[in-house]
This record gives sequence, C-alpha cells and structure tokens, in this order.
Amino acid sequence: MTGRVLLLVEGAVAQVTLSHPGKLNAMSRAMWGALREVFVQLQQRSDVRCVVVSGEGGSFCAGGDISEYPDFRFQQEALRNFHEDEVWAGLQSMLDCDLPLIAQIEGNCMGAGMEIACCCDLRFAGASARFGAPIARLGFPMAPREAALVGRVAGELTAREMLLAATVLDSATMLQRGFLNRMAGDDVLASLVAETAARVAQLGPQAARLNKQSFRAFALGGREMTAIHSIAKPYAYAESAEHREGVTAFLEKRSPHFQA
Amino acid sequence: MTGRVLLLVEGAVAQVTLSHPGKLNAMSRAMWGALREVFVQLQQRSDVRCVVVSGEGGSFCAGGDISEYPDFRFQQEALRNFHEDEVWAGLQSMLDCDLPLIAQIEGNCMGAGMEIACCCDLRFAGASARFGAPIARLGFPMAPREAALVGRVAGELTAREMLLAATVLDSATMLQRGFLNRMAGDDVLASLVAETAARVAQLGPQAARLNKQSFRAFALGGREMTAIHSIAKPYAYAESAEHREGVTAFLEKRSPHFQA
Amino acid sequence: MTGRVLLLVEGAVAQVTLSHPGKLNAMSRAMWGALREVFVQLQQRSDVRCVVVSGEGGSFCAGGDISEYPDFRFQQEALRNFHEDEVWAGLQSMLDCDLPLIAQIEGNCMGAGMEIACCCDLRFAGASARFGAPIARLGFPMAPREAALVGRVAGELTAREMLLAATVLDSATMLQRGFLNRMAGDDVLASLVAETAARVAQLGPQAARLNKQSFRAFALGGREMTAIHSIAKPYAYAESAEHREGVTAFLEKRSPHFQA
Repeated sequence: MTGRVLLLVEGAVAQVTLSHPGKLNAMSRAMWGALREVFVQLQQRSDVRCVVVSGEGGSFCAGGDISEYPDFRFQQEALRNFHEDEVWAGLQSMLDCDLPLIAQIEGNCMGAGMEIACCCDLRFAGASARFGAPIARLGFPMAPREAALVGRVAGELTAREMLLAATVLDSATMLQRGFLNRMAGDDVLASLVAETAARVAQLGPQAARLNKQSFRAFALGGREMTAIHSIAKPYAYAESAEHREGVTAFLEKRSPHFQA
Repeated sequence: MTGRVLLLVEGAVAQVTLSHPGKLNAMSRAMWGALREVFVQLQQRSDVRCVVVSGEGGSFCAGGDISEYPDFRFQQEALRNFHEDEVWAGLQSMLDCDLPLIAQIEGNCMGAGMEIACCCDLRFAGASARFGAPIARLGFPMAPREAALVGRVAGELTAREMLLAATVLDSATMLQRGFLNRMAGDDVLASLVAETAARVAQLGPQAARLNKQSFRAFALGGREMTAIHSIAKPYAYAESAEHREGVTAFLEKRSPHFQA
Repeated sequence: MTGRVLLLVEGAVAQVTLSHPGKLNAMSRAMWGALREVFVQLQQRSDVRCVVVSGEGGSFCAGGDISEYPDFRFQQEALRNFHEDEVWAGLQSMLDCDLPLIAQIEGNCMGAGMEIACCCDLRFAGASARFGAPIARLGFPMAPREAALVGRVAGELTAREMLLAATVLDSATMLQRGFLNRMAGDDVLASLVAETAARVAQLGPQAARLNKQSFRAFALGGREMTAIHSIAKPYAYAESAEHREGVTAFLEKRSPHFQA
C-alpha cells in the first residue's frame, strides 16, 4: 500500500482524491503514475464537465513520500527520471486536461501539493490550510519545470519565499497573494466547492475546452500578438449547437441547456 | 441608434464615454469601430495628456450587444472577422495609444467591459461595481487574443474564474486581486478620477509616451534582457526641453512646466 | 563624499547597506559601481548564505542623486551609458547573485530604491515606508530594462501607477499588491529581518543556488516547457553530501547540518 488516486464520477462532476493514509496524502511514485492515468482518462470522457481535486481525511497533500527517497534520489539519472518523467507526467496530464479543475484544499498543501494545486483552474481552501514547499530543509531544490509552474501560478514573491526561506503560509495570506479564489470555514469548504462544481458543470462544455486551450497558450508564454495561433480552429464553434443554444436561450429569456 | 463612443476634450484631459442607452453601454459592432476611431484620433493629438474612459449613466459596459449576435455569430468567417478585425481593432487602438488611460468603472464591467478596462493603465472603480465575463452561460468562449489580454491584466486566477465558472466579482475582490488601483464610494469616484487625471496631465508628456512604449513591450512578453530593443531611440529624450526643464526645476526647487 | 555601499559579513549573513548621508541614500554614480562590486564579491563567497539589503539611517533609498544629473543626463550617449552600463550593471549583479537576498525597507523606497528592492527575493518593510518612482515630475521616463524589471516584480498595475501618475504608495498598499512578503512595525522590522535571515542561512545553500537559477530563468520569460534547459545540470546535486544529509536527517528525525 503506497497510496492511491481515486476517481469517482457523479453526474457531470468528477472527484479526484489523493489518498495515502497515515502520510497526509504525500505523493508516492505510484501516486504520480495514478494521477496521470486518472487525468488521461478524464480528458477522454465527454460526460464529465468539472473536476474537483482534493485529499482524503482533511489534508490536501503533504508533499512527496520521503520514505521512498533513499531508493532513487541520490543517483543523478534516477532523480532526473523521477522529476522529468514521473512527477512531470502527472502534472502535465493535469495541465493538458481541457476540463475545469477545482482544487479543494484542506490541511497541508506542501511541495507536491502546491504543484498539484497550481495545475487547477480554481483554488478554494479551508481557513486552517497551510501552504509551502520547505524542501530546502531537506537539502534539495524544486525541479526547474516545477519551480516555473509554482512561480507562474503562485507568483514569484510567494514561490521565492516558500523555496528560499522555507516559509509556511496560511490561507488568509494565500488569499491575499491571489493564489486562492476563496477561503472558507473548514466545515463549509466541501459544500462551497460542490455548489461551485455543480454550477460550472451547467456551463457550455465546448466553451470551457476552448477557454482552457487559450489559457494553456497564455500559461506557456503566449501573449496577445501570438494568441490567435494558439488554437487550431478558434472560431469553428460558430456553427455548433451549443453556441446557438446559448445565444438563443439568452434572447428568449430562458435557461440554456447544453449537451456535452 | 446602435450606441456611440463619445469624445470630449477639456483642457489636457480627454473623456471617452461608452454610450448605449437602455443596454448598459453594451458594445455594438458600430461602437467597436467608433472606439477605434476615437483612439486613433487621440494618439495624434498633442494637446491631450490623459484620457478617462467611462460609461454613461452609471454603468461602464455590460458586455457585447447580444441582440446583434444572431446576425453574424453562427458563421465561422463572420465570427472570426468580428473578433479579429472589429473587436481587436478597437482594443488594439487603445493598447497602441501612448497616452495614460484611466478607467472609471461604475456598475457593470462585463465581457467587453473587462477587455476595455484591461487596455487602460489605471483602473478606479465605484464600490458597487461588478466584474465578470459570464459568456460560458451563452455557450461561447472568449476569443484567444482577448483571453490573453484579460489573463495578463486581471491575472490567470481571475480570468479562469470569470470564464470557467462565470463568477461575477465585486470591487472589493477586484481591488484585493490587484486589478484596481483604487476603490471609492460610488458618489466620489468621478471626482477622484478627475483629480487624478488632472495630476497626470501635469506630468511630462514625453516621459509618459516613453514609459507606455516600455510597458507595451513588457506586456507583449519582453523582459529585462530584451527591453533595450523595445523602443527605437530610448535615450533620444536626453537633449529635450522637457527633460532639462524637469531636472532643472527640481534643482531650483520650483514646479516644472511641461510643454506638450 | 558621494555615497557608499557597505558590506559587513557576520557569520553566514551579509549586510549590504546603502549609505549616502543627508540624501536619504540616493544612489550616486559611485554607489552604482560600488553596488556591483559588492555583489560580484558576494557571489564568490561560499561562507555567506543570506544577504540583507538595507539603507542607513531609516531610509532605504530615495532614488537617484539628482545633483549629479546636470553633468551627464542631457547628452544622449552619456545618458545611455549611465542607464545601460552603470545602473544596469549594479542591478544585474544583484539579479545574477545566487544567494537569497532580503530587502529591509524603511522610509523612502523611490526610483532606484524600487529597482534595488525588485532585485531582492524577499521584501520586508516598515509600516511607514513609502514607495514610488515619481520621475515623470522630473520630465523623464524609466529606462526600458528598469521598467521591465519593476513591471515584472511590482506588477503592471503598480508600475504604471508609479510611472504614469507619479503616485506614492504606502506599505499597506504594497503588501496588498503582492510586492511585500511582510509589513512590520518600524521598530521591529530589523529584528524580524534578522530572524528570517538567520533561518534562511541554515537551509541548504546548494538548494538555494539551484532555486535561484530556476527563478532567474523564469524571470527572463522561461515557462514550464523551457525550464528544463534553464540550468546546465539540474540534477547533478543528486549525489551531493547536502542532499543526502537533508533527506537522511529528516528520516532520522534530527535537524540537518549543511556545510557550505
């Protein structure tokens, strides 16, 4: 038993749950592989319209599973493979997913937890959650791709503070820094996220996919001048049923109904 | 009557007013064209030193004029022309303007309103203003260039929340997210903006133009290493009267007087 | 006496002090050169693990030394040399430094002071500090590289406000805008910074250097896809004593001891 990543689909909302009992859901190597499998699968499913990512038992993710580290970290090629293949493949599968992803963050959100949260589109946290990447205490840096990810999403100020000073920040600070969309009482976080996910799931799914593709291009450095090249057929949706239904419903003053 | 964009110059301050009565200043196709004409004209005027952009009747801009959509949105080439030519030409004329632009935001700032506000340098809002881009309810995405613009200026967190969750945010949240310079009581917003515009108009106009060119290069992805190539003659101002007057006035402990 | 940049190393923490008595530590040309010398020297020292940058006598840095300006600013080539060679060489030496840099900001942090603060990794300020770059009052723009630096670190909203409206902002606003990690009472700022520096100095120095290299690549525009190329040997640390000590100490539930 080295941890799992659980997938549960209820209606149009998928729940992805990091589960590593007794380790605050620290990511084992097996879990990085499982994370990738779950998101590759989600990307194929046309019935899912929103994904909630959370951790089991009141913790989001406490980082990597350090008990595994002596087996591979002290050899350069093994370390490279771990970061570039295993970890990044998991994160990349999240970044490549065209569905809206909501992080529901309780308890510890450290190291790998920060990276997973950075791959989500929206981030909601409980008031008592804690955020950081204090791996300089363990004598190692964040891998370059992962540092670029956290720098981009959490901002340089926060990423540098977490990595260079090993500072752990609370939810109120992460809200103020623009990392969280909302902070909620720990006891109401799950219901707030569920409500939001249900709302997201009723919006146009094609619109979400196209917006995610635009944001992906932006995240990789695209700006206004290059954005038109970021999506293969940015206006092919013109003639779609979803587009017509949304505009028509508005003009007819009724709620739209979007088929997947 | 499909809406207008009004230009009024008083002294060194220009007022650009979005006007579409009964539609909360939603942008019609005619208004995108008018917006472009106004800003192309402003860019030529050496008497103007600051531009205030606002909406008529207590609303900044409620988005696009949806009543026009059935006429062109459901055909791919027409949709592309609308976004890439009409909308973007209007926004680009704002981004290309070398004058300091201040957005005075009251009431609704939605969709096209967010995009127009993102083209301004400073953003002041009334306490009761509301911000969003809930077009996923209408079954369509933001065009890639426009999403890149909003992602860059409003931040990815806010842009993703607006587009993927159709969330509408209030002024206090937009201030906290770093989108607004100031939030003011609705009743004092106009006078606060007018004071600021008057102050901006007294600063060196050549300095403003050069700073805007540097920021434009930065906005398009330029960073420290490439910045020196962003302006044709970054130090040609050395020998200008404005430069000499500013430094000399400071050393003589008097107020500078800048000719346009 | 045209100002100095003082270097004092106590244990693993270096204090870099801007000193220009009677001028609120405004940067003279001599000080830009001295700043460069200090940071080139620091980059070579393996005994230093954290650098605190502050100003003497209750002011961080009030800008440039305007009394020197008539001597060189009004001639294009001299002005270019000043910005591109003297000023940028000083700032670049800070950006190139692989040590964690903490700005301790009291009183005035204007113009050159903002630029120096932007080169630091962490920024702590006293409650009464003031921030800005009101050089448009002097009739000149920020140089393009410097504007790109301030735009990147302070954000476009703040950079445009400082340069286009000559607005001076207080510590509370700069904290809210995400420029400061912490705001503290003026009387406790120095001890807060000293505690933080001592904590940073106990973390793995190799980890800090590698993290700083990743952040440097990010700052220059690198993103996730290009990050792997940003460091020559990103995983060569695998077999280092520091890495082994950090992970082993954690698993043995003891504090790590990192040799430089």
